[in-house]
Amino acid sequence: MSSDQRHDERYRARGVSASKAEVHAAIATQDPGLFPGAFCKIVDDALTGSAEHCLVIHADGAGTKSSLAYLAWMEGLGDQVWAGIAQDSLAMNLDDCACVGALGPYLVSNTIGRNAKRVPGTVIAGIVNGYQRMCDLLSDHGIDCRMTGGETADVGDLVRTVIVDSTVTTRLRRDRVIDAARMAPGDVIVGFSSTGLAAWEDLPNSGIGSNGLTGARHELLGAVYRDRYPESYAPEIDRALVYSGTHSLHDLLPGDVVTVGAALLSPTRTYLPLVKRLLDEIPAADLHGLIHCSGGGQSKIVKFGALGRATGNRYVKDGLFPIPPLFQAIQSASQQGWAGMYAVYNMGHRLEAVVPPSRADACLAVAASCRIDARIVGRVEDRGLPGNEVVVRTSHGEFRYT
Amino acid sequence: MSSDQRHDERYRARGVSASKAEVHAAIATQDPGLFPGAFCKIVDDALTGSAEHCLVIHADGAGTKSSLAYLAWMEGLGDQVWAGIAQDSLAMNLDDCACVGALGPYLVSNTIGRNAKRVPGTVIAGIVNGYQRMCDLLSDHGIDCRMTGGETADVGDLVRTVIVDSTVTTRLRRDRVIDAARMAPGDVIVGFSSTGLAAWEDLPNSGIGSNGLTGARHELLGAVYRDRYPESYAPEIDRALVYSGTHSLHDLLPGDVVTVGAALLSPTRTYLPLVKRLLDEIPAADLHGLIHCSGGGQSKIVKFGALGRATGNRYVKDGLFPIPPLFQAIQSASQQGWAGMYAVYNMGHRLEAVVPPSRADACLAVAASCRIDARIVGRVEDRGLPGNEVVVRTSHGEFRYT
Repeated sequence: MSSDQRHDERYRARGVSASKAEVHAAIATQDPGLFPGAFCKIVDDALTGSAEHCLVIHADGAGTKSSLAYLAWMEGLGDQVWAGIAQDSLAMNLDDCACVGALGPYLVSNTIGRNAKRVPGTVIAGIVNGYQRMCDLLSDHGIDCRMTGGETADVGDLVRTVIVDSTVTTRLRRDRVIDAARMAPGDVIVGFSSTGLAAWEDLPNSGIGSNGLTGARHELLGAVYRDRYPESYAPEIDRALVYSGTHSLHDLLPGDVVTVGAALLSPTRTYLPLVKRLLDEIPAADLHGLIHCSGGGQSKIVKFGALGRATGNRYVKDGLFPIPPLFQAIQSASQQGWAGMYAVYNMGHRLEAVVPPSRADACLAVAASCRIDARIVGRVEDRGLPGNEVVVRTSHGEFRYT
Repeated sequence: MSSDQRHDERYRARGVSASKAEVHAAIATQDPGLFPGAFCKIVDDALTGSAEHCLVIHADGAGTKSSLAYLAWMEGLGDQVWAGIAQDSLAMNLDDCACVGALGPYLVSNTIGRNAKRVPGTVIAGIVNGYQRMCDLLSDHGIDCRMTGGETADVGDLVRTVIVDSTVTTRLRRDRVIDAARMAPGDVIVGFSSTGLAAWEDLPNSGIGSNGLTGARHELLGAVYRDRYPESYAPEIDRALVYSGTHSLHDLLPGDVVTVGAALLSPTRTYLPLVKRLLDEIPAADLHGLIHCSGGGQSKIVKFGALGRATGNRYVKDGLFPIPPLFQAIQSASQQGWAGMYAVYNMGHRLEAVVPPSRADACLAVAASCRIDARIVGRVEDRGLPGNEVVVRTSHGEFRYT
């Protein structure tokens, strides 16, 4: 059994299905929408009946990062962790929408489920205020994002602490849709760093986003939290897999100047102001794809592109960013195989643009104006076979995903 | 301490905040929308900029009813329980929207969180298919409801089994909004039964809907399930409060011909076809209010009406339906005070229309055409004091809610 197969079993044992293949099978019969190859599902504008427009209604959330926020909040890290969770829930959602060229107005509804025994109203207020703060920030960058309400349900028999999801509704012209199906051989892949301090950020970002937090938490944090906060994990998990690491929240992250807690809770960067400038600078016809490297990490792109061609795309990524300290620490603690690491975590960039080579400089210039590191991380080739493939070449080896 | 105060403590001990007052306080600073007195929050149509239209973006879910579905599914009651949960999640949502006069097209996004160790892809498929079945049913009644996608997240550290929420986006003309603020002295309250077999239903409805299920499950079901399914409740609950009743799922519900399991899992009735006919039969100016008696039960209406007047409304309900067997059984098992019962459960009707007396017959005729029992359950009076009040007069006593 490979190191990665062992890790799939660890995920499953913690209540996470690494591939979600069975979920995808369950929903396979659903209508794929107007642009089946686009990054998000896009549907008819049934609200107005306009044949020139379409709608994106998108759901996502902070995932198990809220369990970590709970743990940190109980350990005294303060109420601001909840504003971060609201940002996680919203950025995961909005950045998906931006990948099809939908830049608002965004209408946001939040769905919060809590155990009222554990999570008081002040936490809900912290989350709600966090959503509003994010809307205000986006407004400063000319992006209209509005809270429209939501639901806070007391569901202590279902939710151990608190779960924070959001749903975004937005509308755009059909001729403005970025359809990732158009990604084609000859294109280059420009990656936008998930770390550092973007022009609109107050604190450096660790790069983590809101993916892989179940693994990251349990692999990094130490068993002291297991006995202290049984409400922060599934009691059915094998005890040996619960907080099986060595770190406290307050330890310095190896190779970095921030703590493990701060790095894990680093709120998900939104790339929206960057995407807005990209759309201003690059003609729609040349923006072949925008990929949010969320669930699936650097392999996410494999699901998109090459529509209508007999042979698939090969996405060669041989110029990735150096691995940020947090992902290094997760791998070091977990001994997970690198192939798996690149398929769970973004490993350095959470957004990539796929464009003709002539547009690469414009992408880099936009990134520089946002103070986000960017580089050409790879290119698109003709695979010569049906189906897409991703090839990730790193100093740790070459990994293929189909 | 009153019987109802004791029960508030039982709710809290089970992770449910009966009043949600602290949650309402947490969100009190949010913009109340275009019609602050309407049943749902209504916002500007930022999607098109039309000043003549408005949007309703609404979130709700099946609550802890999914924990009961899990238990029943494990006990062999079959996959159809999951279609019922999808109906619960959707009906709770759509019926809220209908109360402001929004009758679609409805665009539905679902958010499902699961523990992948407990809940396989077949369950997700059952839920997703259940949503589609509900859309098809509504389509048969001329109501356009479409699934637009959603998110299934593996969050085993947060969710013990599965949580099923949905978010609905819809749009309507501002001059068609039913603004419950207009409910005024002189109006009558027509209740539409939550039980029986509506024209569009296959099985008689117990009336339960998706409210109060944490209490109902634990008060009715017996301790055999406590040891068998620890994943179906919060481990922090005092063991004496977990499945503290005497029934098995397969017991006949006292006074009825269905089982306790079937009655508790009875899918939430949607009143949409009835509301559609009401809007056809009654001029908008005379439909002063439609109230979905969901969380808050028969006291729900107290939050609405009398806007712009110095004195509040008194909603006198002295002609309620006989109490359905399931609510009788819950009270009998729990010994909860009747005042609390009426403030948690709908006790017989889950929808009420508030209209001038001249329109009551039209309401009753529409209900008859839907094969739903209806009756004038009460009236609106001038309270003579600021603030609204509900007075429920029953054979068990008179109860007041402010």
